[in-house]
This record gives sequence, C-alpha cells and structure tokens, in this order.
Amino acid sequence: MRILVANANTTEAITQACVAAARAAAAPGTQIIGATPGFGPAVISTRVENAIAAHALLATLAEHAGAVEAVVLAVSHDTALDAARQMMPCPVLGMTEAACLTACLLGGSFGVLTLGQARPYEELVARHGLAARCAEVVGLPLTPQQAIADPDGAAAQVLAAAEAMAARCDSVVLGGAALAGLAAGLQARSPVPLLDGIACAVTLAEAMVRMRLPKPRAGSYAAPQGREAIGLSPALAALLRG
Amino acid sequence: MRILVANANTTEAITQACVAAARAAAAPGTQIIGATPGFGPAVISTRVENAIAAHALLATLAEHAGAVEAVVLAVSHDTALDAARQMMPCPVLGMTEAACLTACLLGGSFGVLTLGQARPYEELVARHGLAARCAEVVGLPLTPQQAIADPDGAAAQVLAAAEAMAARCDSVVLGGAALAGLAAGLQARSPVPLLDGIACAVTLAEAMVRMRLPKPRAGSYAAPQGREAIGLSPALAALLRG
Amino acid sequence: MRILVANANTTEAITQACVAAARAAAAPGTQIIGATPGFGPAVISTRVENAIAAHALLATLAEHAGAVEAVVLAVSHDTALDAARQMMPCPVLGMTEAACLTACLLGGSFGVLTLGQARPYEELVARHGLAARCAEVVGLPLTPQQAIADPDGAAAQVLAAAEAMAARCDSVVLGGAALAGLAAGLQARSPVPLLDGIACAVTLAEAMVRMRLPKPRAGSYAAPQGREAIGLSPALAALLRG
Amino acid sequence: MRILVANANTTEAITQACVAAARAAAAPGTQIIGATPGFGPAVISTRVENAIAAHALLATLAEHAGAVEAVVLAVSHDTALDAARQMMPCPVLGMTEAACLTACLLGGSFGVLTLGQARPYEELVARHGLAARCAEVVGLPLTPQQAIADPDGAAAQVLAAAEAMAARCDSVVLGGAALAGLAAGLQARSPVPLLDGIACAVTLAEAMVRMRLPKPRAGSYAAPQGREAIGLSPALAALLRG
Amino acid sequence: MRILVANANTTEAITQACVAAARAAAAPGTQIIGATPGFGPAVISTRVENAIAAHALLATLAEHAGAVEAVVLAVSHDTALDAARQMMPCPVLGMTEAACLTACLLGGSFGVLTLGQARPYEELVARHGLAARCAEVVGLPLTPQQAIADPDGAAAQVLAAAEAMAARCDSVVLGGAALAGLAAGLQARSPVPLLDGIACAVTLAEAMVRMRLPKPRAGSYAAPQGREAIGLSPALAALLRG
Amino acid sequence: MRILVANANTTEAITQACVAAARAAAAPGTQIIGATPGFGPAVISTRVENAIAAHALLATLAEHAGAVEAVVLAVSHDTALDAARQMMPCPVLGMTEAACLTACLLGGSFGVLTLGQARPYEELVARHGLAARCAEVVGLPLTPQQAIADPDGAAAQVLAAAEAMAARCDSVVLGGAALAGLAAGLQARSPVPLLDGIACAVTLAEAMVRMRLPKPRAGSYAAPQGREAIGLSPALAALLRG
Repeated sequence: MRILVANANTTEAITQACVAAARAAAAPGTQIIGATPGFGPAVISTRVENAIAAHALLATLAEHAGAVEAVVLAVSHDTALDAARQMMPCPVLGMTEAACLTACLLGGSFGVLTLGQARPYEELVARHGLAARCAEVVGLPLTPQQAIADPDGAAAQVLAAAEAMAARCDSVVLGGAALAGLAAGLQARSPVPLLDGIACAVTLAEAMVRMRLPKPRAGSYAAPQGREAIGLSPALAALLRG
Repeated sequence: MRILVANANTTEAITQACVAAARAAAAPGTQIIGATPGFGPAVISTRVENAIAAHALLATLAEHAGAVEAVVLAVSHDTALDAARQMMPCPVLGMTEAACLTACLLGGSFGVLTLGQARPYEELVARHGLAARCAEVVGLPLTPQQAIADPDGAAAQVLAAAEAMAARCDSVVLGGAALAGLAAGLQARSPVPLLDGIACAVTLAEAMVRMRLPKPRAGSYAAPQGREAIGLSPALAALLRG
Repeated sequence: MRILVANANTTEAITQACVAAARAAAAPGTQIIGATPGFGPAVISTRVENAIAAHALLATLAEHAGAVEAVVLAVSHDTALDAARQMMPCPVLGMTEAACLTACLLGGSFGVLTLGQARPYEELVARHGLAARCAEVVGLPLTPQQAIADPDGAAAQVLAAAEAMAARCDSVVLGGAALAGLAAGLQARSPVPLLDGIACAVTLAEAMVRMRLPKPRAGSYAAPQGREAIGLSPALAALLRG
Repeated sequence: MRILVANANTTEAITQACVAAARAAAAPGTQIIGATPGFGPAVISTRVENAIAAHALLATLAEHAGAVEAVVLAVSHDTALDAARQMMPCPVLGMTEAACLTACLLGGSFGVLTLGQARPYEELVARHGLAARCAEVVGLPLTPQQAIADPDGAAAQVLAAAEAMAARCDSVVLGGAALAGLAAGLQARSPVPLLDGIACAVTLAEAMVRMRLPKPRAGSYAAPQGREAIGLSPALAALLRG
Repeated sequence: MRILVANANTTEAITQACVAAARAAAAPGTQIIGATPGFGPAVISTRVENAIAAHALLATLAEHAGAVEAVVLAVSHDTALDAARQMMPCPVLGMTEAACLTACLLGGSFGVLTLGQARPYEELVARHGLAARCAEVVGLPLTPQQAIADPDGAAAQVLAAAEAMAARCDSVVLGGAALAGLAAGLQARSPVPLLDGIACAVTLAEAMVRMRLPKPRAGSYAAPQGREAIGLSPALAALLRG
Repeated sequence: MRILVANANTTEAITQACVAAARAAAAPGTQIIGATPGFGPAVISTRVENAIAAHALLATLAEHAGAVEAVVLAVSHDTALDAARQMMPCPVLGMTEAACLTACLLGGSFGVLTLGQARPYEELVARHGLAARCAEVVGLPLTPQQAIADPDGAAAQVLAAAEAMAARCDSVVLGGAALAGLAAGLQARSPVPLLDGIACAVTLAEAMVRMRLPKPRAGSYAAPQGREAIGLSPALAALLRG
C-alpha cells in the first residue's frame, strides 16, 4: 500500500520529520512517500499562508493522483482537506481530524492541546462538526521555537497540561507540528491517552484503503468534470477537466 | 489479532450473521469470535429491551476481558457502548458509531438510513455528538421481517432512498441489522458510498489495536476499582472490583 | 395516591433515606412506598454500574406496575428513565430531571452542584435537552464519605458554592445522594433557591397524577407489546409481552 | 390556595374562558381569580401588541402582588414571563412553557400545534431553552375565527395533525387560545398525549406553591429595589421601589 | 436624511448624550432627532423596567412614524427591537445588535464588555442569534455611577479588559450607556477594535436608508393591520389599526 | 472613496457585471475599481476551484493593498474572506456574508435562495456563525446557464420561491452570480425583501470606511509579519513579510 504524506508548506525538513513519524506508525507493507509543495509559505502560521498553501498542496497532490492509495495531509490545520477529498481518487485524511475521530473511537470527550492561540483549533474542530465531543482547547504559552529548543521543558509542560485537562477530557489530541512525536514518550505518564495526528492519520488511512469504499458520483465531493482554468500546473488542470 | 463480535440480544442466528460479516471485512490474521448473551431480549426493539440488554451485554463481555484485543458491539443501537469502554481493557467499537465516524473520514455530511422510526437513530447520533455532521435520518416504511422476506424489494428501496439522500448526504450509513450486508451489493449502483456498520467497526477495531493506545487512568472511562455489587455474574463482579 | 420511590442500587439505607425525604415532601394523603433492587451495585458511581443498575431498576419497577400511580427514581443519575417511562403504565420521574425542570419553572438559568466530577452531570443535563438552561455544573472536591462524615463542613462548602454560582445561576440543583436533604437547612441563607431532587420529583409526580394524561399509544414511549426474552424476572418478562 | 389567572389582553371573554378552564384543572381548595388588563390590545397577534401587553400585564399583576400565592399567565405567548417572575413575590407560570415542561416530564420529544404561523412558537420554545426537546412546530391553516366557528372541523384537523406528528413527537402541546379546551375531548383518540396550557400551568402552579421555594435575593430575578419611574400605576411604581 | 435616536428611559440627560454621540458619528447631511419617552423607568436596570420601557418606547416611536427615515434605539438592551421593526415603516436599529453585526463585518469573533452582570448580555446576543460569533461576555466589577465618577479609572479598566479579551476576541463591543463614548479615546491603545453601539447603529442606519429595501408585506414583521386596543396613545393606536 | 470589487475567477465578463452592479449601488463620490485574477478557474463551482481561487484572489488583492479604502469580494462563496481580512489594511466584505448581515439588520429570520445545491450555502452560513438566523436555504433546480438563457423564466421561479419562503423567512438573500441583479426588478412583487450581495456589500463597505475602525494588532486578524514564502507574486510576498 502506498500512502502519500503531503506537507502543505515548503520546508523540506518538516516533510522529512512527518515521513519518519508516518513510517513509525505504518503497518509492515505500507510504503510512505513524502511530498513538499513547490511554492508557498515556509511554515504556515497565518490565515493568509493557510489559504495560499491550499493551492500549493492541491498542486502537489495532483502530481500523485492515481499513483497512491491514500493521502495524509501533514499539516495540523487540515489545510484544503475538503478540496483534496473532492479532487483525489483515493481517501484523504487530515492529521488533526484523524486524531479527533480516533478520540471519538476511544469514547467520551477529548481535548486539544497546542502551542500559542487556542482559537484557530477551536474553529477547526467546529468546522469538522466535532465541537460537541471537544471539552476544551488549551494553548500552551510556548512558541514552536521554544518547544524545539527545549524539548524536555516542552514535554514537562505538555504532561502538566494533560494532567489538568484529564478533569474534563478522556483523551488529548496534540495539535501542531512542534508537538509531533511527543505523544509516544509521554503516553505512560499521562492520565489519559495522548493522540498524535500523523500516527492516527496513517493508521486510519490504512483502514480506509482496506474498506475499498467507492468515491461519490454525486454531490460536492464527486470529482470535478470539465472545469476550465488558466495558469495552473498541468496535473492540476487535468484533474479539473476530469 | 482476536476481535470479539458481541451480540446484545439472545438470538444466536443474528450473532452468526454478524460474525460472518465481520470475517468478510477482517484482515488476514484477524480472528473473529462471536458471543451471545445468556439472558435478555430475543431482538431489541424497545427502550426497555435496550436497557436490559446493556446488562446482558456487559456480562457477556466480562467473560472475554483480557482474552481479546478488541470488541465490536454487534447491535445497531450501540447498546452500553460507554459502559463497555469503561469496563474492558481493550478498544470497544459500536457498529453505528463506527460507520458514522467512517463517514466523517470520507468527508462532508452523512445520512442514516434505517427501517421504521428515524427518531431513535437521530437520538443516537446526537448522543454520539455527531449531529452536526448528519444531514438527515430516513426511516423506510418497512419492517425487518418484510426486508428479510423480500431482499430484492428491500434492496430496491434502499437504493432509491440513497439516490434521494444524495442531494444532501455525501455518504449513507445503513442502520439496523436487517440492512446489514446490503451495502456491498448496492455500492456500485449508489451515487454515494454506503456504509455497513459491522465492516466499518471491524476495520477500525483493527486500526485501534495497531495504535496501542493506553486506557485512561483518570475520569469516567478509567476501569472500575473496588466497586461492590450483589447478584452479578462472577466475571462481571470481578471487573467491578478491579 | 401511591408513589413508588425506587432506589437503583442495593443499599437499603439509601432507600430508607430517600423514602423519608419523599414523605417530608409529599402532600397529605400521598403514600410513599420504597423499593430496593434485588441485585446490582451497592452504590452507583461508574458507567458500568449505572448500566447494570438500569436492568435491576426495571426489574424492581415491574413488580409494582399497576399498583402505584407514579414512580420517582431515587437515583441522581436518572438511571433508565426513558425505559422506565416506556415500560410503566404511570408517570415516572427522575430526581435530577425533576429538579432541573423545577428550576426552569422558577425562571432564568440554573446551575447544578455535585460532589466530585462535574462531567457526568453535564452529560445528563445535555441528554435531557436542558443544556441551554444550565449555566454551569460545579463539582465540589469532596467525596460522599467526607460529606457524610462532616455534614456541617459540607453544608458550608455548599453554601459558599451557591453564593459563587449566584453570579450566573438563578437557582441551584443539588445533585447526588450525599447532598440530599441539605437544601431545606440552607435555603434561608442561600442567595438563590436550592433544589432537592427528591422533593421536586415527589411534588411534580403528584401534579402529573392529577393531570391524568394518557400514555402514548404510538412511538418509542408506547408500552412494549409481544416482545420475547429469556432469563428475566416473571414480572419484567410479562411487561415485555404486554 | 389562591391562584391568579391573568389575561394579557383586554378581552374579558377570553379571561372568563381561561378562568373556567383553570377551575376545571385546579385541585379542590384552590381558588382561581381572573384578571384582565385595563389597557392594551383586544387580542394579541403581532409583535407590537405583545410588547404593549407586557406592560399592561405587569400593571395588572402588580394589583395582586402579595394577595395570591401563584400566577398563571393566560396568554399563549408567555408574555412578560421573565419580568413577571422578577416582579412578583410568588411563582409565575406561563401556559406554553408549562405545557412544554409537562411534555418533558412525560419523556421524549414534544411537538407544538397551533393555528397560523409556526415561527413565533419556534422562537418562543427556543427562548425558553427547550428547542432540543421540541421535534417540530406545526401551524394549521386555520384562523382562530374559523376554529371557533367550526369547532368540530377544527377538532378533526387537530386530531389528524396529532396523528401525523406522532411519527416524531411523543406528546403534542396545543398552543394558542383558540385550541384551549380541545385537549380533553380528543385525548382518548390521539395516539400521543395532548397538553393544554392552562391545565398544565394551574397544576404545576399548585405544585410550586407546595414546594415553598424562596425568591432569589441575587441576580436578575431578585425583586427590584429603589427603581424610579414616572407615569406608572401606583401599584407598579411601588413594586419597582421595592 | 433624518434619523430618530430614541431613548427607552425617561432620563433626558441620557437622550442628550446619545444624540451628541450620534451626531459625532453621522455623515454630513444626516439630521439627528432625539426623543425621550413620556413615561417609564428613569434608567432601565431590571427585567421589569425593560418590559415597561418597551411600551414607552413604542409610544415614542409612533409619534415619529413617517417623519424619519430610520430609527436608532438608544438603549443597550435593544429594548422592543423586534416590535419596533414590525411597527415602523423605516429601518430600526438596536445599538448592541448593530455593534455586534459590525464586529461580524470586521471578521472573526467578538467579545462584549459591560459593567456588572454579564448574563443579560449573553442572553441578548443569543436572542439575536449571534452566540456563535461571540467568544465571551465580560462584566467589569464597576457600577455605572463609579464609571461616571471616575472616567479615567473606568477607561483604564476597559483597556485592561480589552487587552485580556484580545486572546479570544478579534473585536470588543462596549455594552451599556456608561461605556458610551469611551471607544474613540481608547481605540489607538487597544489591541483590537472597540465598537461603540451608537456610532455603529447610526452609520449602519445610514447604509440601510441608502439600500431602500421595502418593508415585508408578509410574516411577523409586516405592519399591523386592523388591530384594536384600548387606552393607548392615539399615534400608537393608529399604527395598530394600520 | 475607492472600493475594489475583486472577482475570484478569471472570467472578465463576470468582473464587469459585478462592477456595474456595484456602481449602481454606490453612493455619489464612491469610485468602483474592478479586478480579475491572473490565474485560476474560469468559474468557481467545485471545492477544488474555490481553494485554488483563494490564492488567486489574495494575489489580486495584494496588488491593490494601500490603494483602496475597502474591498468587496465579488464571489458568492465569500472565497478567502478571512485571509483577505487578515492581509489587507482596509475593510474586506464578502457579498453573501454582507447580504446575510443586512438581513439581520432587517430583523427576524432570513432565507437563502440559490441555483443548484443548497448544501454549500448552508455550510457557508454556518461557517459565518449565522445559522441561528437562517430559516432555510433553497436551491432552485436551474443551472446558471438556464437562468441566463431565460431570465424571465428564472425571475418567475425566484419570485415563486420567495413567496413560498415567506412562510418562514422575513427576507431572502439571493446567492450566486447568476441571480445577481434580479433583486431590484422583483422587489416590488416579493412579499419579503430580496437582498443582492453586491449591493449590500458595497453599501456596508462604505459604512465601514466611514467608521474608521483600526485594524487589530493582536490575534489571527492582525497583519502577517516576517512570514517567508517562495514562488509567490512580489506583492503577495511583500504583504507576508509585513
């Protein structure tokens, strides 16, 4: 099984880190293929960058349409998730949505823990229609740079937050690239399960491939047909024409 | 991997049908074990029977605690799902919740199609916190007996309903035992994917086992400890004592 | 008028305390009859116990069907409330729902004050469809044992909490058996009314009896008819057969 | 016990009809006192009239403050309900809210059946925070005049609507003065209970009086104190001064 | 263009302050006309006063129907807003709703900052159907008298609150007459825009006049026709007759 | 005042039509400037095209940053609205959101009428947080091509739909470019006001300019600062760098 792990920003190191995390989570026999957009923001941290990266991500995915059996969007904002699902002939999973749905399968309410502002993740959970299952979103007062410079300090703060969140949450989704990979090391000490977006998305992607569900032929997730555009990459233009 | 497929009513034929469906969906290497409660309703179709069956189902699960790696509740009401999750040391999946979460992974909005009253499934979806993703619940004017007596007629009605629901739904969950197994045969002719509860639950159960997430040690999903009771089966009483 | 006050756990002392509270609240001429299940948890404090107790409670109620004019469920989780309403030929009231609806009749928003985790009561209020009227649920950091061992200390904590909750709540529902009976003594000192579940449920049960409303003959609250089961008590099996 | 049944419009015949309905529902020993405002709309059927009638109703209630033990607002819009609750020293019940809360005590979902536009009752139910319990609001294409001129025809339409609504509703609240009194005659033929606002409000008012709950001393339902105004009736001005 | 700025209470000084604020916000060529009710509360601060003021405000508006091109209700509770919209032949704007809708046009989530209890503004925002856009309502522990006596201290508290609210809010609506006029002076120092109800309402009223939208001829906002009443002012009675 | 009317697709004729509509709605002294993206879909009708057009639209807007006082997005999907608001130093309005907010200012509930699928507009209204004000979204069974080929037939269908929607809606927003311009001609015959997105957006944009509100300096709508990217247009890259 070939799964594309597609970064939405142009920083190759982030792609490589996500590919490594995906490989650690994948079943034997699953091949992980990384992809990095050819244009767009270095790291997405604003609404403007997220909107631009949607185009860049779709152009990247278009290069792989038909050549992979599933796609994992390696970006915690689940950038362009609905458009990618419409465009691609295979299942597409967003890492934050996948972690939230895994939390639902565990039962009860989940929390989301991230760095910086909580608000964008609250919006994301609501847009995914999962607000009723989400007890709280907590933003640690840390920048990604600080978290990467002092991983032990960041881990301690994450664990303390998870302990506090356990009063209301039956599991905690770790949101944001800077927290990726922390879950495994802290799992044994956390009172509730910690969910890593890449691990959840890759495992659920494998499940979706095995279910062999057809693509919708009607509605707004049916593949585009006969749509004209100018100035797009050949692969993207071809998918719009159908 | 051993997955328990636990019926919540006492009709052995339903257990066998669910086990067969589970085996058809399972990955190679997954062993499906069926279980039927020793007491309770023949077929659940009222609130009273559902409440009684919760106890019967928990008593049945208790016999298998520690001996299976995941549980699928083979009852479309997701009977006792939260209690089973708290009690068992392994992942527990409800067939209707699993199908709804699979629909979420496909993207967009889902519908639920069932026989008879729509209202109980609306309540179930709401209790699962997924009402925001559910565009409609449709109850076909058919009894389970009629559906089983005339499977071709039932299939035609399901297909017609799916075509109508595609105006608002990007996928359709088939709810209720009498519709189990219909999805595969109609998939190619339906405008949107049809989701079968047992197939979704078994495949997602395999994914959950592979994720190896720990059980919560805090909150209302942590295993019971030191709880006393009278008149329960030894296995159930033992799990309450912890 | 005969009102059954049915405990959902097997601790006879709790039944007696609830019966005494019910008698204090009842109108002259109302006869209060207590009942304790023959099996199940000693005290309900987990999801597993609540699910088991639902069966035990229904079996208990079945012994009294036709012999009482109303039922009050003397358990703050409103265990099996919907199933009991379907099964019994008379009105059935849950003590927490009754207190919440009394709060609605007082006007404005209510709060719920309990011992320990707030989350289960938040879920209960939401399942009753009353979340829009509930401003907050507060869990005091006290165990039931502590509250019973030091009633004056518990009363002081309840009063302090009610004073703080009055900033958002126009009345406060006391949830959980360990707080039962506190309302009357603190009423005069609390800035907003304190609502005791048993007192509210008994008084509203008397009102429901006087309204003489018929039982639904359609839908999921109509009495079961022709349902088969095995291993149930004769009275419970008889009600399922209709 | 003295209960004031206060009309919100100036049509004395409506007051008398409501008083008669209240007496039919009241317990022995309850004295029903009718009141009609001295100014305002003849019959409320617009937003403007409802706003004016709020003042008229409060002025009417003020004449009775301290002289009655409970108030029933005999107007299906529950006009000025929150203000009346703040102002009066005794429980105040609105007939539509009381019927909706009685429906909640019966269990499941309720519907509201009225004449003409459904929308205002949808807004009213939502403002009462009970939308989650209300499955639908149905407006029959009849004017109050037509319903009064042909009561048998109206009854037949109400019964037909109740039968259709039973597919989604476990009880039906009859909203609007023109349907008052119909419930009793149709009860035996309706598949689900029909709830009459005056009957529910009077019986619940009696229950509230028996509960002897204190008035809040804090928050927006505490009685006004030291408020100055000009041009109001002496009784109303006195209550504002406290 | 003539815009009526109608106070809902009888304190002429508040009318004059609102008229001055309106003139400061109005475009050249807009004429601001103030109006003060002839009866009712001096200052609205309870539910009772608000209900009475609704009648007083409608009577005041009725004197100006046809003589102005728009109405701004100069009362932060948006008293009688829906009734005024139905009654008047021109656009009617409430100052708090107008500020909230301006916040929506700025994008993201807004907060509301007021003096005293937050709860009434939470209810108001919910009744306007805008709760999904409102991140929080904060009530400063200040009375209007304190705010007016120490404007610099009040301004410092407002600024501090706005800085704290900026963690969740993209703009802040200042609610309540005592905060009127503060926005302009603090705007440059606040991290997010501060919205003044009178300024927003006047500017949006000018926009509504320019759009020349017709009044609805159907539904509950169509003008009253043929409604009879007693004891009302001639102008108000005339509008009810249509 | 200079207002940019920015199309999100590359069809110049649509830009010109929107510019003409904007000029018809603008106040004297307002200058309307049209803009068409240099790349992207000819006409947006899929999720994929909408995501691509977001980038194209932002690139177009970036060329005008600082040279206009407000922006109207001339695309009924309100494409990239939140990103454009963050990026631009001036107010940015979406035509559908502007029409919905105008409907709120009129009072009561609004409906949305469009061609084809209703679902995307339901999602859009929900994402704008306005679902509580929206009574229904109706999709006429017409393609844009059919509407343009037979404008009288389309107008008749729109009017018939508006008449039916008036049973639940106090105003109707016309969504989608093919219905643009119909409102004015049908206004006199419709029972409730018809709202045209371009007209509402231009008039409200003028109002926002006059309010002179500052841009947020904190939160996710503050302008990007120091963000790096590759392969973007110079103007867009410059705005990301701040």
